[in-house]
Amino acid sequence: MTHDLRAIAAQLQQAALRAVDPAEAVYKALSRVGDQLLVDSRAYALRNFERVFVVGAGKAALPMADAVCEVLHDRFSGGVIITKYGHVDRTLPDQIRVREAGHPVPDQHSIDATRELVALLKTATPRDLVIAALSGGGSALMTLPADGVSLADLQATTQLLLRAGATIHQINSIRKHLDDIKGGGLARHANDATIITLILSDVIGDDLSVIASGPTVPDPSTFDDAWRVIEDFDLIDQLPASIRQRLLAGKQGKLTDTPKPGNALFERVQTVIIGSNARAALAAEATAKHLKFNTLLLSTSVQGEAREVAKVAAAIAQEIQRYNRPVAKPACVIWGGETTVTLKGSDLGGRPALGGRNQELALAAAIAIDGLPDTLIAALGTDGTDGPTDAAGAIVTGETVGRGRSIGLEAAAYLAANDSYHFFQPLGDLIITGPTGTNVNDLLFVIAA
Amino acid sequence: MTHDLRAIAAQLQQAALRAVDPAEAVYKALSRVGDQLLVDSRAYALRNFERVFVVGAGKAALPMADAVCEVLHDRFSGGVIITKYGHVDRTLPDQIRVREAGHPVPDQHSIDATRELVALLKTATPRDLVIAALSGGGSALMTLPADGVSLADLQATTQLLLRAGATIHQINSIRKHLDDIKGGGLARHANDATIITLILSDVIGDDLSVIASGPTVPDPSTFDDAWRVIEDFDLIDQLPASIRQRLLAGKQGKLTDTPKPGNALFERVQTVIIGSNARAALAAEATAKHLKFNTLLLSTSVQGEAREVAKVAAAIAQEIQRYNRPVAKPACVIWGGETTVTLKGSDLGGRPALGGRNQELALAAAIAIDGLPDTLIAALGTDGTDGPTDAAGAIVTGETVGRGRSIGLEAAAYLAANDSYHFFQPLGDLIITGPTGTNVNDLLFVIAA
Repeated sequence: MTHDLRAIAAQLQQAALRAVDPAEAVYKALSRVGDQLLVDSRAYALRNFERVFVVGAGKAALPMADAVCEVLHDRFSGGVIITKYGHVDRTLPDQIRVREAGHPVPDQHSIDATRELVALLKTATPRDLVIAALSGGGSALMTLPADGVSLADLQATTQLLLRAGATIHQINSIRKHLDDIKGGGLARHANDATIITLILSDVIGDDLSVIASGPTVPDPSTFDDAWRVIEDFDLIDQLPASIRQRLLAGKQGKLTDTPKPGNALFERVQTVIIGSNARAALAAEATAKHLKFNTLLLSTSVQGEAREVAKVAAAIAQEIQRYNRPVAKPACVIWGGETTVTLKGSDLGGRPALGGRNQELALAAAIAIDGLPDTLIAALGTDGTDGPTDAAGAIVTGETVGRGRSIGLEAAAYLAANDSYHFFQPLGDLIITGPTGTNVNDLLFVIAA
Repeated sequence: MTHDLRAIAAQLQQAALRAVDPAEAVYKALSRVGDQLLVDSRAYALRNFERVFVVGAGKAALPMADAVCEVLHDRFSGGVIITKYGHVDRTLPDQIRVREAGHPVPDQHSIDATRELVALLKTATPRDLVIAALSGGGSALMTLPADGVSLADLQATTQLLLRAGATIHQINSIRKHLDDIKGGGLARHANDATIITLILSDVIGDDLSVIASGPTVPDPSTFDDAWRVIEDFDLIDQLPASIRQRLLAGKQGKLTDTPKPGNALFERVQTVIIGSNARAALAAEATAKHLKFNTLLLSTSVQGEAREVAKVAAAIAQEIQRYNRPVAKPACVIWGGETTVTLKGSDLGGRPALGGRNQELALAAAIAIDGLPDTLIAALGTDGTDGPTDAAGAIVTGETVGRGRSIGLEAAAYLAANDSYHFFQPLGDLIITGPTGTNVNDLLFVIAA
């Protein structure tokens, strides 16, 4: 083997994470040349605006806002940034207020901070520019229950829908009609100011109306849709009274619906996905190409049970080694997405089992490629935290199962116990990045030389 | 949509099945021009051989042998073909004896027929040619327990190993040391006759030493390996005495081991895989290319739980529709392999649930691509019989879930009940081919226009 597959995997990983680093992603999308603010392919003359506001919410909102301020230099007047408790790793310029709130479950601080953000937006005029930075967690952190709706009622409704088996799209169609900021609400409050929304997406498929519940984009769903979901799942009687009354009033046309596609409101909104799973995967692919690998970016929306999906990755690795298909060696196949783990294991050796979806995927892949030469599979979460562990994921080769056995660790037993961390940790095959400050779901590399 | 995706799927399916039809596959690999018998890239002068024997075992052995006799014209002296009960759909020339036996569990008829086959081989000399036709089921149908070993002991040993969690490779290393025809035994009995083995492979990965238990190829496993498996699983005391004694004697060097790679025995053996999952997949791909689709043959060894693997197929379909990756539209992604179904469902509507791994995969894919336009996913078993049903598989599109709902069938409920057949049957979306007479595992097509 002339390639050091581990070194190559490390280079791919580094390139991918750099491409979706919140600040780096802002710098790549946003730049200022004199009076011109360049955003993606558009240019804004700053002299046309009286004031520039910087707002945002999400786990990466702080480094994103910091980079926005950096690019604007001193050309901003104020802002409100909402992030998760414990995610304040820097100070922003004095004009920007930083608020911490609850995630994944919103709390009173979420509401208070969102009110503060909306109050600021309401001071805007058509001569102002608002730059909004949104990232994963934005939906919980930026919450403003509609008149008469309590946070407790909102949460009870979500729980009810989840238990009934509603899809995330069905749940969103309801939530957007119970909240004054989701589903285009942020844009509605900004009094026809110009809006630039910068998005770091942690949503599979990058649906703009789903990311942070789409505060600056049209809401295709209606009060009628929301009511139909309630009817379909037969939940009318179980809903909190305040929710039932609001949805019914909306359905009867007594309330203004969320702004729809085509609404003039959105003519002054530019939305740019500055970071996403696809960006990370493409960056890894570019690096692999640069290293003279034949590459294939298979998908950026792979979902499913980690240990089963692993077998598809293994089948591709075997096909490459056996037939030089779907790409010839040296080959690098990349996919992104987010798998799930159904916990079934009991603890091994008296110690609580420990793992994450990427480590579990890697362990199942190791078993499936046992003995296959010159092949490496790496699975990692871009946030650096796979499950409740300090690892981002793990790296496996055709020798992993044997290396485990040689130190008394049987891969199949660790997989059965959902105890992947304790298999990889003694082997030194965990991927450790530390918290990366970003999150664009997971990546998988199949490298065959 | 300018493409009729269903018509295209039907063309792909037809091309794939034709490529692995047992007789067609023989005709493609074997031909006779005057005195020359052409096999793949080699030529044999028939005048160099005194006699030609046609032997074989497997569910497709009869049509394969029939085609071999057709090609040989009248240039064969005798033969024995062993197939499964109920698989005799034609008469062979009088010189070829046809025997029926038990499958998947071998019975006394398997042993008797194999003895007959071996007795014929033992009449061969170095001046004879043996053409062997092997296909799925050959391992059970061609069984010859070693001296002192009974069929019941063999079966008890296999059950013991399966229950202990042994892999198929571990089980094979033992079975080949308990049987006089597996692991190169057929070649050993043929007295240095020239052998041409034609294989229709139903083994994922086409490992020649696994297909029909490798009767004409070297056995890399040893008596030592077999004993180690017994030790590792701590089964020494539980083994039938006859088996324990034989394996121990072999380990102690008192018995001749199976012929190993490099053995001169195999210099006069040519092995040709005439049909396999890869052949079928490549034929489908060629047809898709001919229809101007951009194609990708991803793997021919996909395994895993059907409903989870389905999500990867769906993720690829979504990637194509969203980003024109991994291949641009109109796109056709093909994979092969064989998935599994873990039965969990209870019966729906008082009627026993019915389905198969391909129908279940298709149903899970339908849910995952619900609403995706211009996309079709087809999953089918090449033997035409998916699970205990009269269907080979099913076809789904982004409209399938809605079409089901419109006639009162909720896809998720049918998937939860493992009742895919009863979902697809009323929709008319089953793939019905009838028994195809071949088996090279399963195929999946993702077609996006």
